[in-house]
Amino acid sequence: MSAARLAGVLAPVVTPFRRDLSPDPARYVRHCKWLLEHGCAGLAVFGTNSEANSLSADERMTLLEALVQGGVPPEKLMPGTGMSALTDSVRLTAHAVGLGCAGVLMLPPFYYKGVSDEGLYRNFAEVIERVGDARLRLYLYHIPPVAQVPISLGLIERLLKSFAGSVAGIKDSSGDWNNTKAVLDAFASSGFDVFAGSEAFLLQNMRSGGKGCITATGNINPAAIDRVYRGWRDSDADALQAGIGATRAILQKYPMISALKAAIAHWGRDPDWATVRPPLVELTAAEQRSLVAELAAQGFDMPGLAG
Amino acid sequence: MSAARLAGVLAPVVTPFRRDLSPDPARYVRHCKWLLEHGCAGLAVFGTNSEANSLSADERMTLLEALVQGGVPPEKLMPGTGMSALTDSVRLTAHAVGLGCAGVLMLPPFYYKGVSDEGLYRNFAEVIERVGDARLRLYLYHIPPVAQVPISLGLIERLLKSFAGSVAGIKDSSGDWNNTKAVLDAFASSGFDVFAGSEAFLLQNMRSGGKGCITATGNINPAAIDRVYRGWRDSDADALQAGIGATRAILQKYPMISALKAAIAHWGRDPDWATVRPPLVELTAAEQRSLVAELAAQGFDMPGLAG
Repeated sequence: MSAARLAGVLAPVVTPFRRDLSPDPARYVRHCKWLLEHGCAGLAVFGTNSEANSLSADERMTLLEALVQGGVPPEKLMPGTGMSALTDSVRLTAHAVGLGCAGVLMLPPFYYKGVSDEGLYRNFAEVIERVGDARLRLYLYHIPPVAQVPISLGLIERLLKSFAGSVAGIKDSSGDWNNTKAVLDAFASSGFDVFAGSEAFLLQNMRSGGKGCITATGNINPAAIDRVYRGWRDSDADALQAGIGATRAILQKYPMISALKAAIAHWGRDPDWATVRPPLVELTAAEQRSLVAELAAQGFDMPGLAG
Repeated sequence: MSAARLAGVLAPVVTPFRRDLSPDPARYVRHCKWLLEHGCAGLAVFGTNSEANSLSADERMTLLEALVQGGVPPEKLMPGTGMSALTDSVRLTAHAVGLGCAGVLMLPPFYYKGVSDEGLYRNFAEVIERVGDARLRLYLYHIPPVAQVPISLGLIERLLKSFAGSVAGIKDSSGDWNNTKAVLDAFASSGFDVFAGSEAFLLQNMRSGGKGCITATGNINPAAIDRVYRGWRDSDADALQAGIGATRAILQKYPMISALKAAIAHWGRDPDWATVRPPLVELTAAEQRSLVAELAAQGFDMPGLAG
C-alpha cells in the first residue's frame, strides 16, 4: 500500500444495484470519480453505508477490480474488508493490498456478541499475519450501534504494540465524542490516525488531532464537508460546521442509505440509483419527494452529477 | 428435499478445526455419525454453535459435500444457509437443496439492525424465488440475542401466505417461552414445525404441539435429550427434563461453544477438538478440568466417542 496516509473527507461509497439487485460497476466507477472530483480525499468503499455486508466476498472483489480498472486510483481507496469469517477477512484484505489500496477499514467479526478482547485480538492478529504484507495499513472500524461488537482502547493498545507498522488508525462510528477523544488522547500522538465516523464530529476531531472523517453524507455533500476539513483553523469554521450539520439533519429524518441513494437518483437523473438490496427498503415516492424538497430548499445541489 | 419432515432432537453440530484453524472434514464426518447413532434425529449443521459465521460460504459448501460423500444421509441435514449477503444465502440454499438436504435453517441478514419486516420479507422471498426449487424446506432462525434481528409473528404469517409450501418451520432461540408459545398457537396447526432453541423448553414445546428442539448440548448429550423427546407423554417426563437441565446448567457456566468442544476433546481423547476460530477463545486448561470434573461427577459420558 502507498506510503502516503489518507486524510480529509472519505465517503463510505454507496453501492449501485441494477433493478435485478446485481451490482453495477459502471455507475459505481462514475460515482467514485465524481466524489474524488468534488471534495473526497479518499473512498471508504464497502462500508456500512455501502451495503457491503449485503455483498458476497466475490462481489466485493469484482467491484474493487472494476474501480481500479476504471481509473479510480487505488491510493485513494480504503475498502472495508472485515467480515464475520476470518478466512473471508484474510482473502479480502490480501486482495486489497495486492491492488495497491491505501488501506483497509476492518470491522471486527460481528456475528457473536459479548466476545472477549482476546478473541478480537486473535482475529486481527491472524488477518495481519496471514496477509503478511508490509504494505498493509489497517484501520479499525468501531461501530457498536450496528456491529454490536466494540473495539476497546485496550484492544487498540495491544494491537499497536504488536503491529505498529500495520495498524494505522480507526474510524470511530460510536457517535460518542468522549470515546473519540479518549482514542485521540491515547494514540494520536504516536501516529494513529483517527477519523470521526460522521461529519458531526469533524471540527472537534480536527481540533483534537484527528485526520478527518468518513461519513455517509460524504456521498452527496463532499465539497461542503471538505471546506470544513480544509478550513478548520479558520474563523468561520464553526459556521461552516453548522451548515453541513443542517444538511445532515435533513438526511437523518430518513433511513440513511436509502436517502443517500434517493438523492443521487434525483440529482443524477437516474432513478435506478435508488435501488437497495434487502433487508433495506427504498424510500417511498412521497419520502423521496419530501427529502428532495427539503434539501433543495436549503440550496443543496450535486453539480455535475447528471453528466 | 425429502418429503419427510425432521422431528426430534437436532444438534447444531460444532465444527472441528485443525490447529491451523482450517476445518477438518474427517473429524466432522465422525462426529456427525456419532450424533446420529446416539439420539439425534437430524443435524442442524452451520448453526450458531457451529461457528458457521466464522466460515466462508465456500468452506461451508466443502464441508457439506464432505458430509454427504462421507455417508451422512442428506435427509438428516438442516444446514444453516442464511448469511448477511442475499447472494450468499441464495448460493448456499441452492447448494443444500441440490444435495438433497431435508431443509435449511435460515438466519435473517444480521448486519443491519432495526430493519423493517418488509425488508426481511423481501430477503426471504428473494431467496425462495431465486432458488426456485419445490424441494426447498425453509426453517426460519429466530435468535435475537445473537443476530439482534428478530423474526416477528407478522413476518412468519406473511411468508406462510406467499410460500406455504417452502416455509416449513422455525427454530426459536429467543429464550422466551412466551414467544415460542405464541408461534405454536398461531401456526403449528397449519403444519408449521416449531423447534425450541434449547432443550430447556423441549417438554413445554412438545406439550404445546412443537416438533422437538435444536440445541447446543445435543452435541454431547443427545441420548438423554432424545429420551425426553420420545417420552414426553410419559409420567417420568418431568424428571427426565430435570436431568438434562442439570447437564445444561453445568455447561452454561462456561462459554458454550468452547465448552462443547472441550467436552468432545476430553471424552473423545482428541485434544485438537478444543480448537475454536477467533473471535472465540478456547477454555483455559483449568476451566476444561473443572468442566470435565463437574460433568463426570454427574455420571456424564459420551459412549463410543473415543472410538
